[in-house]
Amino acid sequence: MFNILDLNSQHDALIKHTIDNKTKPPGALGDLETLAFQLAKIIAVDNKILINRPCMLVFAGDHGIAKEGISIAPSEVTQQMVNNFLAGGAAINCFCRVNQIQLEVIDAGILAPLEHPKLHNCSLGQGTNNFLNEPAMSITAVEKGIALGGAMVAKQTQQGSNVIGFGEMGIGNTSSAAALLSVLLDWPVADCVGRGTGIDDVTFLRKQQLIEQAVTKHKSQCHDVLSALALLGGFEIVEMCGAMLATAEARCVILVDGFIASVAALAAIKINSNAAAYMVFCHESEEKAHRKLLKYLNAKPLLKLSLRLGEGTGAALAMPLLKSAAEFYNQMASFDAAGIQAV
Amino acid sequence: MFNILDLNSQHDALIKHTIDNKTKPPGALGDLETLAFQLAKIIAVDNKILINRPCMLVFAGDHGIAKEGISIAPSEVTQQMVNNFLAGGAAINCFCRVNQIQLEVIDAGILAPLEHPKLHNCSLGQGTNNFLNEPAMSITAVEKGIALGGAMVAKQTQQGSNVIGFGEMGIGNTSSAAALLSVLLDWPVADCVGRGTGIDDVTFLRKQQLIEQAVTKHKSQCHDVLSALALLGGFEIVEMCGAMLATAEARCVILVDGFIASVAALAAIKINSNAAAYMVFCHESEEKAHRKLLKYLNAKPLLKLSLRLGEGTGAALAMPLLKSAAEFYNQMASFDAAGIQAV
Repeated sequence: MFNILDLNSQHDALIKHTIDNKTKPPGALGDLETLAFQLAKIIAVDNKILINRPCMLVFAGDHGIAKEGISIAPSEVTQQMVNNFLAGGAAINCFCRVNQIQLEVIDAGILAPLEHPKLHNCSLGQGTNNFLNEPAMSITAVEKGIALGGAMVAKQTQQGSNVIGFGEMGIGNTSSAAALLSVLLDWPVADCVGRGTGIDDVTFLRKQQLIEQAVTKHKSQCHDVLSALALLGGFEIVEMCGAMLATAEARCVILVDGFIASVAALAAIKINSNAAAYMVFCHESEEKAHRKLLKYLNAKPLLKLSLRLGEGTGAALAMPLLKSAAEFYNQMASFDAAGIQAV
Repeated sequence: MFNILDLNSQHDALIKHTIDNKTKPPGALGDLETLAFQLAKIIAVDNKILINRPCMLVFAGDHGIAKEGISIAPSEVTQQMVNNFLAGGAAINCFCRVNQIQLEVIDAGILAPLEHPKLHNCSLGQGTNNFLNEPAMSITAVEKGIALGGAMVAKQTQQGSNVIGFGEMGIGNTSSAAALLSVLLDWPVADCVGRGTGIDDVTFLRKQQLIEQAVTKHKSQCHDVLSALALLGGFEIVEMCGAMLATAEARCVILVDGFIASVAALAAIKINSNAAAYMVFCHESEEKAHRKLLKYLNAKPLLKLSLRLGEGTGAALAMPLLKSAAEFYNQMASFDAAGIQAV
């Protein structure tokens, strides 16, 4: 699936020379140099990094497991928050406005569908099944979701976008993400489960127990990434996974938000490992397993602001750093040009 | 010196209520909530955070201690970099452009003065004396520098600025900052000295030895902050200190960049402890002592991007986070308004 170009090292020497010859000590711009290097490899034209029409795709879906009451809020809140996104009132709206990011909201499968001119209908159903009792969805739904995610990306790249961020909304989706993480990397459930947006001790223990139960039930049937997604996934996670693969295929930059987006990114990498080179990990969230996953992916996130909200907020907040990396790469004077003694 | 209002807690309950009633779980925006709280206390009007004409003041000065060869570059580079700032070619120019920050460059006392229409002349002399042998400057110079720094801020606030960032350039200035830190907090020199923009092991040991020698020589005469600044300071550090105090007096937000700006901030707090509440610490630099100093100041910096450049770069990169904090505080929907079940 997906024909993703292995980012070759043909221009690495030129890119390194460009960065090292800027009027600063070598390496003095730290993580921004690493970021500029990556951006130059993906989207440079004539050795200039051109960021165009950055956009944020927020996928919303509901989860059968939420019936077990292991989140701080009931499933109705997913739809309420989608309405909030569409009305411009949520945190992600604020951060996209300030940072000039085009925001698109996608119904990947919320419980009660909505009609709204700005909402993209990519629904795979009215919430997943409760994976405690049965597969969350069919393999057909997974395949359809991956294709729909890819189509959403195509709409953006056709309008010129070359940097695409990914966020989500879905009551119960840290449970699905934790279960997926556990089976995809064969990690103990206890290492994968966290407190989501803030559950108490009792609910946390119950959440861990239920996910343990679900993983035990389905693990032997998780033959590959697609079957794992079908058994334990969420509609928004599946569509994010497909959308990320399509973004890499289109040779664009993938902005990965928090824990759930990172699990979708992991699934995408497991499907096609070439996708990893296109990903910028934007924020290390408070969700316990996120740090471990980032370490596994060898990713140093740009921000660590103790967010635990999702919606793509961490990715939107990191966007100005990409613009700054591009600006120094494109516009900062070289030692020669500025008449400064190189150090 | 300076009449700085103690930020009272009169509006704390209203500010907390405003933040907690936004459509997100309590605390889910992490450090941005802390930032919004601080900004609201300093610059809110009718409970809206109004950021106006953010600007960055970059103070440049030369250091007698640089003659000892303990930096990666000679003192001439200070002037060359000032020219680079004035021509728009340095990293700080790029980051201010991208983040729409007004940049002002100040000659606090570089070796070879420059004439340039955009350069503010606040020179206290052609570089400090070598504090290894004599006081870096006179008490009169310190007093003059604090006043000149304050006057630079007044120019900005008169034009409406209410968020002011502070950066610096000066070959040798991590040495001065390390010596000051050691005497101001009575910390061992070894805890205060780092590698600046990247010196090697031999130079590092020599730097530590020389600063040890200077601190031993002058410490008994460091009766207060002003005498410490005179004996071991730098012109740019003194002017930053005065400028920060004036910013707090004007009830504006102080953006503190890296290690050297943080030592200037420490001096300002030691002169008037009310100043601390107006400071936003923007970036934890690679300079070893910076982390320890931030911890002492009970500050959690917004960014940690492994920068080791100064110039105000860390502060300029953090500016979009202030705008995002203001936007969510001012514009994000409340639970009531959005018809969402509070959690």
